[in-house]
Amino acid sequence: MAEFVRRVPEGDNRERLVCGDCGHIAYENPKIVVGSVILDNGAVLMCRRAIEPRRGFWTLPAGYLELGETLEEGAAREAWEEAQATVALDGILGVFNISRIGQVQIIFRGRFAEEQEPHFAAGPESLEVALFPWEGIPWTEIAFASVNWALQAWQRTGTGPLGRPAGNPDSDPRGTHRIGRAGPAA
Amino acid sequence: MAEFVRRVPEGDNRERLVCGDCGHIAYENPKIVVGSVILDNGAVLMCRRAIEPRRGFWTLPAGYLELGETLEEGAAREAWEEAQATVALDGILGVFNISRIGQVQIIFRGRFAEEQEPHFAAGPESLEVALFPWEGIPWTEIAFASVNWALQAWQRTGTGPLGRPAGNPDSDPRGTHRIGRAGPAA
Repeated sequence: MAEFVRRVPEGDNRERLVCGDCGHIAYENPKIVVGSVILDNGAVLMCRRAIEPRRGFWTLPAGYLELGETLEEGAAREAWEEAQATVALDGILGVFNISRIGQVQIIFRGRFAEEQEPHFAAGPESLEVALFPWEGIPWTEIAFASVNWALQAWQRTGTGPLGRPAGNPDSDPRGTHRIGRAGPAA
Repeated sequence: MAEFVRRVPEGDNRERLVCGDCGHIAYENPKIVVGSVILDNGAVLMCRRAIEPRRGFWTLPAGYLELGETLEEGAAREAWEEAQATVALDGILGVFNISRIGQVQIIFRGRFAEEQEPHFAAGPESLEVALFPWEGIPWTEIAFASVNWALQAWQRTGTGPLGRPAGNPDSDPRGTHRIGRAGPAA
């Protein structure tokens, strides 16, 4: 296999992975994670992770946006894949920078598409899926700091009109802390 | 060079580029473009592109988010690189899906950091940089449809409080039209 070397391509100003044979530049850029806070009668849909990282911990249905998808399509797909839920999205609840790992997370607020008969179940990447009222959320078993941030954004807006998206908290403005190092979920 | 083949890796549900030698999966995901509508006394900062695509057409300072950056840092860097402007950002003005080319564009609203002495100049990727009042914008020479969308979002919010980010227009909800095919800038 041809070797990739790190160098600054002509006309660029930062190092890239460049193929030593053909000069192909393998750009590495941040990835987009899309997810949702799905609400039903004051409770939020959460998934217990069946996969690493953070297997066994609770998260929101979320994952990498795929080529060809809109943000909304990706968030709805993840709700289906991880929680077997068909959802309707209201709009963007939060936009979070996780610069430590090259991620931007865009989290929607939404509800079950069939509000009279909400259906959900564990998809292949979830051990279990459940609806939690605020006071029942398993706060000590949250998978990622950004899950806390999105839940707090929900607490602030409730089901009222969405305004400016929530952003990173002042305690971690660039998304550089690991959850274990960031102190208790606050 | 080892050959990459397109196949569905175990545990996945879509085709990926997989190295035939070592099994490495080269994930391809959408990229994030960050940019800004920089305002000064009712005029907006625009750049005439010195590079393809759309060389010679007018755009907003914007470009790919880089690893390790926050969205805000990326948008400010692009304003510096393309317009030699040091900017302060107010918040997110628009979030646009360009699914045709695997892009999500996050456009901020901002102003010159030194409002009393705004400075700008053409960076290496710009032929010229200028401030345009709304009625002076070169509407027939706009580089990309999303530039129109961001400018229209500015027209709606002015310099007032930012609320929900603007999204794609109803005429192109997924960002699949080419500017030449989307009809006149509307």
